[in-house]
Amino acid sequence: MTHETLSTNRSHGGVQGVVKHASSATGTDMTFSIYIPDHEHGAKLPVLWYLSGLTCTHANVTDKGEYRAACAEHGIIFIAPDTSPRGDGVPDDPEGAYDFGLGAGFYVNALEPPFKTHYRMRDYIEKELPAFVAEHYPVDLNRQGITGHSMGGHGALTIGLRNADTYRSVSAFAPIVSPLNCPWGEKALGGYLGADDKDLWRDYDACALIEDGAKVPDLLVDQGTADGFLEDQLKSQLLKEACEKSGQKATIRMQEGYDHSYYFISTFMAEHVKWHAERL
Amino acid sequence: MTHETLSTNRSHGGVQGVVKHASSATGTDMTFSIYIPDHEHGAKLPVLWYLSGLTCTHANVTDKGEYRAACAEHGIIFIAPDTSPRGDGVPDDPEGAYDFGLGAGFYVNALEPPFKTHYRMRDYIEKELPAFVAEHYPVDLNRQGITGHSMGGHGALTIGLRNADTYRSVSAFAPIVSPLNCPWGEKALGGYLGADDKDLWRDYDACALIEDGAKVPDLLVDQGTADGFLEDQLKSQLLKEACEKSGQKATIRMQEGYDHSYYFISTFMAEHVKWHAERL
Repeated sequence: MTHETLSTNRSHGGVQGVVKHASSATGTDMTFSIYIPDHEHGAKLPVLWYLSGLTCTHANVTDKGEYRAACAEHGIIFIAPDTSPRGDGVPDDPEGAYDFGLGAGFYVNALEPPFKTHYRMRDYIEKELPAFVAEHYPVDLNRQGITGHSMGGHGALTIGLRNADTYRSVSAFAPIVSPLNCPWGEKALGGYLGADDKDLWRDYDACALIEDGAKVPDLLVDQGTADGFLEDQLKSQLLKEACEKSGQKATIRMQEGYDHSYYFISTFMAEHVKWHAERL
Repeated sequence: MTHETLSTNRSHGGVQGVVKHASSATGTDMTFSIYIPDHEHGAKLPVLWYLSGLTCTHANVTDKGEYRAACAEHGIIFIAPDTSPRGDGVPDDPEGAYDFGLGAGFYVNALEPPFKTHYRMRDYIEKELPAFVAEHYPVDLNRQGITGHSMGGHGALTIGLRNADTYRSVSAFAPIVSPLNCPWGEKALGGYLGADDKDLWRDYDACALIEDGAKVPDLLVDQGTADGFLEDQLKSQLLKEACEKSGQKATIRMQEGYDHSYYFISTFMAEHVKWHAERL
């Protein structure tokens, strides 16, 4: 497997890197960012995965997430993958819309042509990238936590719920909690998995997974009340109801006046990092 | 004077705004960002000015500076102006270079045509913008501090040194300490002030100001040792020598392995905000 370090910058006592590598899961090059705090030689550190939202690459949270000070304080590696495969031959939304195709992989293994060849973000995030980073960086795969924003919050919740043995801690910022019940989800899962058999979607729907018995020790979710996507797309109330019904422990905080932007995410990032650190 | 709020976002308990207003100093519209932490109704807060470097607008530090948590903690308003006039009729570098003209105002009042009409960043930063923000926001002009990065570090040092009664605290990140003694300074001050009478430049050179008797209570400067501009352009050693010679109190810290980027600035931002807070 080939890989290339695109940049390294000293920051908050550690090193912020950006890395490109050849992915066999997606059949493309993939780029991710990795922040490694200062640590003792030979030590392995816990890792917090951050999955980004629609239109994003690794760069948005790397620039604006304000996670490095907290990760340095708690000794946590922070990795931000890209949100879809990219490059020659990777199909996009037929009309180039922002909510499907490039930048909108929804962390699924697609079943429908022409997407099923490259859009295998589930395998990439759950299997290939952890193995890759454990080979090349001081990552302790026995101590993984996962979080994300919006589409990436959906990714974090569903990946965490499906792999409770792998991820010790799961949180999200303004997640899409039920793709089965919102226009973004209808379009994306319909496009990637097909619209005929919606039972196939339940593996990619946090509320459905909880209804179907998935369980993790705890969940932390922050959601801004001034988020323009709350009512039609994010619907955190559905997650609250699913957790209450199934007995899933969860702290779902409505944050007064906050919107969907990185101004919101960065405000609560340090608390999320600390919350994960306590569980890693 | 007309002005328009371009955006407001709740962040770290306060509000991050971006504002455009008509400047009589520059004869153009000017855009700045202003972070106002949560505060008691009717209270006036100290302000920290942040002057940005070459090629930047208000947006770079607003996105990547990681100042809001510290400003919220210490109750400080943070304002980031643009780095030059912009718009129709504003002359640029004849060859569009990054280090003169647009994005490179060097915080001077230009004397040379065609720049002298609009390039009046000294008046804008020292006079017009403080009066404007005091009129519209809960800013206490009796408690002002100033900092900046690179060209903006030059701006902060020179503006602070020339106005010791106005700015209670002065710091800088990787500043250009002597435009008289570096290629960026030669080009910019030569273009804006003329190359014939270099005595005119001394008002815009931190080392020369200190040599000529300017004094402030204290200076804090951080400079990365891996900064590619250190040797040819920034030359922090010259500031160290000028301060030692004149008895100007200064803490000039060489930060091992840090470069010229916002990964460096954001690392030390919270310390600078705290340092200013203690003096405001």
